[in-house]
Amino acid sequence: MEKIAQFLFEAGMLSKTPRTGYRFLGTGRQSVAEHLFGTALIGYVLCRLEPTADINKVLTMCLLHDFAEARTGDQNYVYKKYVAVDERRALEDLTVGLPFGNEIKELLAEFNEQKTREALLVHDADQLELLVQLKEEQDLGNTHAKEWLRNAIKRLRTELGKSLASMVVTTNFTDWWFKGEEEEWWVNGK
Amino acid sequence: MEKIAQFLFEAGMLSKTPRTGYRFLGTGRQSVAEHLFGTALIGYVLCRLEPTADINKVLTMCLLHDFAEARTGDQNYVYKKYVAVDERRALEDLTVGLPFGNEIKELLAEFNEQKTREALLVHDADQLELLVQLKEEQDLGNTHAKEWLRNAIKRLRTELGKSLASMVVTTNFTDWWFKGEEEEWWVNGK
Amino acid sequence: MEKIAQFLFEAGMLSKTPRTGYRFLGTGRQSVAEHLFGTALIGYVLCRLEPTADINKVLTMCLLHDFAEARTGDQNYVYKKYVAVDERRALEDLTVGLPFGNEIKELLAEFNEQKTREALLVHDADQLELLVQLKEEQDLGNTHAKEWLRNAIKRLRTELGKSLASMVVTTNFTDWWFKGEEEEWWVNGK
Amino acid sequence: MEKIAQFLFEAGMLSKTPRTGYRFLGTGRQSVAEHLFGTALIGYVLCRLEPTADINKVLTMCLLHDFAEARTGDQNYVYKKYVAVDERRALEDLTVGLPFGNEIKELLAEFNEQKTREALLVHDADQLELLVQLKEEQDLGNTHAKEWLRNAIKRLRTELGKSLASMVVTTNFTDWWFKGEEEEWWVNGK
Amino acid sequence: MEKIAQFLFEAGMLSKTPRTGYRFLGTGRQSVAEHLFGTALIGYVLCRLEPTADINKVLTMCLLHDFAEARTGDQNYVYKKYVAVDERRALEDLTVGLPFGNEIKELLAEFNEQKTREALLVHDADQLELLVQLKEEQDLGNTHAKEWLRNAIKRLRTELGKSLASMVVTTNFTDWWFKGEEEEWWVNGK
Amino acid sequence: MEKIAQFLFEAGMLSKTPRTGYRFLGTGRQSVAEHLFGTALIGYVLCRLEPTADINKVLTMCLLHDFAEARTGDQNYVYKKYVAVDERRALEDLTVGLPFGNEIKELLAEFNEQKTREALLVHDADQLELLVQLKEEQDLGNTHAKEWLRNAIKRLRTELGKSLASMVVTTNFTDWWFKGEEEEWWVNGK
Repeated sequence: MEKIAQFLFEAGMLSKTPRTGYRFLGTGRQSVAEHLFGTALIGYVLCRLEPTADINKVLTMCLLHDFAEARTGDQNYVYKKYVAVDERRALEDLTVGLPFGNEIKELLAEFNEQKTREALLVHDADQLELLVQLKEEQDLGNTHAKEWLRNAIKRLRTELGKSLASMVVTTNFTDWWFKGEEEEWWVNGK
Repeated sequence: MEKIAQFLFEAGMLSKTPRTGYRFLGTGRQSVAEHLFGTALIGYVLCRLEPTADINKVLTMCLLHDFAEARTGDQNYVYKKYVAVDERRALEDLTVGLPFGNEIKELLAEFNEQKTREALLVHDADQLELLVQLKEEQDLGNTHAKEWLRNAIKRLRTELGKSLASMVVTTNFTDWWFKGEEEEWWVNGK
Repeated sequence: MEKIAQFLFEAGMLSKTPRTGYRFLGTGRQSVAEHLFGTALIGYVLCRLEPTADINKVLTMCLLHDFAEARTGDQNYVYKKYVAVDERRALEDLTVGLPFGNEIKELLAEFNEQKTREALLVHDADQLELLVQLKEEQDLGNTHAKEWLRNAIKRLRTELGKSLASMVVTTNFTDWWFKGEEEEWWVNGK
Repeated sequence: MEKIAQFLFEAGMLSKTPRTGYRFLGTGRQSVAEHLFGTALIGYVLCRLEPTADINKVLTMCLLHDFAEARTGDQNYVYKKYVAVDERRALEDLTVGLPFGNEIKELLAEFNEQKTREALLVHDADQLELLVQLKEEQDLGNTHAKEWLRNAIKRLRTELGKSLASMVVTTNFTDWWFKGEEEEWWVNGK
Repeated sequence: MEKIAQFLFEAGMLSKTPRTGYRFLGTGRQSVAEHLFGTALIGYVLCRLEPTADINKVLTMCLLHDFAEARTGDQNYVYKKYVAVDERRALEDLTVGLPFGNEIKELLAEFNEQKTREALLVHDADQLELLVQLKEEQDLGNTHAKEWLRNAIKRLRTELGKSLASMVVTTNFTDWWFKGEEEEWWVNGK
Repeated sequence: MEKIAQFLFEAGMLSKTPRTGYRFLGTGRQSVAEHLFGTALIGYVLCRLEPTADINKVLTMCLLHDFAEARTGDQNYVYKKYVAVDERRALEDLTVGLPFGNEIKELLAEFNEQKTREALLVHDADQLELLVQLKEEQDLGNTHAKEWLRNAIKRLRTELGKSLASMVVTTNFTDWWFKGEEEEWWVNGK
């Protein structure tokens, strides 16, 4: 159990680990933990739209796909030119002694191979989570976000992911609470 | 699909929604999204230790158990004395038009009833996530965290949760990366 | 005196309590304490423009009108759809044992009834404080602020408040220090 | 009205102006606006304990006593050794054209002269607000706060202020919400 | 050595001291330490473009030119109207007992006299550092940054500084990592 | 000149790049730019205590020694186990087209070889800067800082660095402004 407790504290590091792309975008901020939550939620959505996918696998993969960043930090597309991450070794160290350590390594190997349907869906969930944030930054006035959005869309690998993305980029980030409500509410609160 | 895109932007609000207990503790900070990630991760761990639990249900419940806070904010134990949240109405509004809206409502109803094994495990995952943060604040010197820890432990409902908690409170938050490493590494990086 | 000391620490919580609307606007931030300061200052201004108002009552009402949020948090127009605050109970608990507790309850009852001139002025001071912040966010490029401004203006209840509001929305947030100064100063500091 | 609108935007600067002492204390943070709110609230309390004081004057003085810091920044006890602030000129510039400009200047002159009862009470309200923050930092573990508290207490000028201070330093910053509540609540929320 | 250790802790205060102009610009943030780093780096660049300058003197002057702000805070162009800083006294106090204290005082006297080539280059390095930040804020959408840029350019005193400034204002803040890279990289990371 | 302007914007990234060790320590924060300022300042001090060192070289090396982190991020002792940084390639890309690009590469090659006296002094300046921050965190109550301090001291390579370090760890981080001042000042400001 001691190793499991350590694993939970390691997860806590992901709340203190910033996604490093935002410092290049110039606005916005996000922790890796927040990104993993968003990715898992999108993974859930994709599995509901495509019921043949193994949701158990997709959710676990989404939650864990960047877990090694507790030990490596987050690498954006600029850093990746110069930084090589030995994710395998990080995974070895973080799973050693964990009763479910092998499962974690197998899941992430499957994710990295990008061959199964589940791995492809998690890949797109990861990118869709970024798209949602970029669209919000664009709506808030960041003029560079548009080009980032264009590139992120090209990374998508499933038709399902692409069709969801096309909806994300045409939805205002405030629609979920603002659209459809009578103006009366915003004036009088009733 | 438009309603689904809105659902994803709604999830984004959880990264901007602070867990409000920390302002009463006096140290620490966390977003609801970070809490949901941590809860889901612990849900995964509990299911690995208790394989008869329905992991699919546990993970989804963990990810969604505070989702309505995008529309209601987070209520801590002080606020709860004075604030009544109509979670049902929030869930109605957030699920209307969603193809998987009914599932979300059913899952959260099951969670709130606290009768199934999965609901109990998610309850304890939620508390364990808090325990991990409180232990870190205690290790960093917050003298009030000890009493918070004591109370949070009493909320646990499963033996599995209790035994994991007893390990969390005796583990230093730095053990996962510090313990076991030769001093040589911290001096010379090799 | 002990209860009074507790009352002062309770006031300290308002500096840690964020106004929750800004997370929906997407930019800006403010604590409830900062909002109460701004409201009280505007209350002072309104009383100077309308000398028949009871300034003592207006200032005290302004300072206290959101005091219960130390125990309830701040509810924005989205949260209000789902969250019911028992402000009366919060006020009972925060005033119990305070020598001036009854006065606080009476003042806030008067404010909530919105019948006296003072209550109406405090209402408008509250909204004007928001208008000032929204205008600044608009000047800084938030494209949604305009609609928020339009709605906030409609909430105003006094002619005095409306005429001051019309001035706020046509003033740039930097005019107070920038306008009227010779360019020479900004170049040479003399 | 245009000058009045500018005055309101100037007040907004106080939310962006940090109290500079905290960077020397090493922990804590506060804006000048938050300090002015706290001071005014304490001013209200002092007037309720000493009903012969002119509460109208005390509240206005409290709200305005650091207003010029929008143009000068906040000077702590280290900065004051080296920095001379021409508060008079700042007040001239901020009040020019304001219908109530002369009143503001007269109130702050009275405050600076420290001769009237009201001026002394505002002085002590200013220090008591600091004491409340320092006590909280002390409770949270800052070992230097004790000496700061000791010095701040010596600055108090009224018996009323001193007796309230002696209560503040013996009250835990969490008593207002924690003390007196049954443990049951913190465990079960009922 | 004790006094030298104190000098190092004093330098640490510069990381906690914000450049105060940004609160008037409305966006951006920077510590004095960050500004001094940027100024020294630009000083290095200017010396490479003008090899006859005494680089040792330029670098030291750049690093130290705002050092006294640890004791005085940072004064922007608004504050300067009302605040007089006795930099000489601050320098006396910070250098007393330092073996290299006289050198520091002489260097800063030379800088303030603005007669030597090195002093002029440091002056322009100081302004160029500001220009770089303002251009970034302009690129990110701050509509007031343009006028700030125009004024800052007028402060430049050397032809070298002016020609570098004209390049800064026509360069996008993202060019260094974005321009010239194939789109392929941003899509596929290879 | 265009490439030089880009170089200045690249330096700006260092203010947005956090030193990643602090998230493992649990308290404190610092940008790489702030670290480079502190290192350069300490480099200056070391050169004044050891006048035979080439100060020009030491200052430039200090300012540039982590410059590549604009493209690679900052790697702490945990990350270093798993992350390999191709600093050479980062330096190639950041210096291409710069008139003083070769000098930068040569300086950092000398630093990395750790053979010259200047390279050793810069190494110790880098560690001393960390020691100063760790001592402050220790004084503020972080109980883990002591062990970090002990390890950092072991990394020092020069007698000069070691003797300065022994002074840093016995000096309170507030001594520079607090020690030696009469209590009267802190009470009355005169």
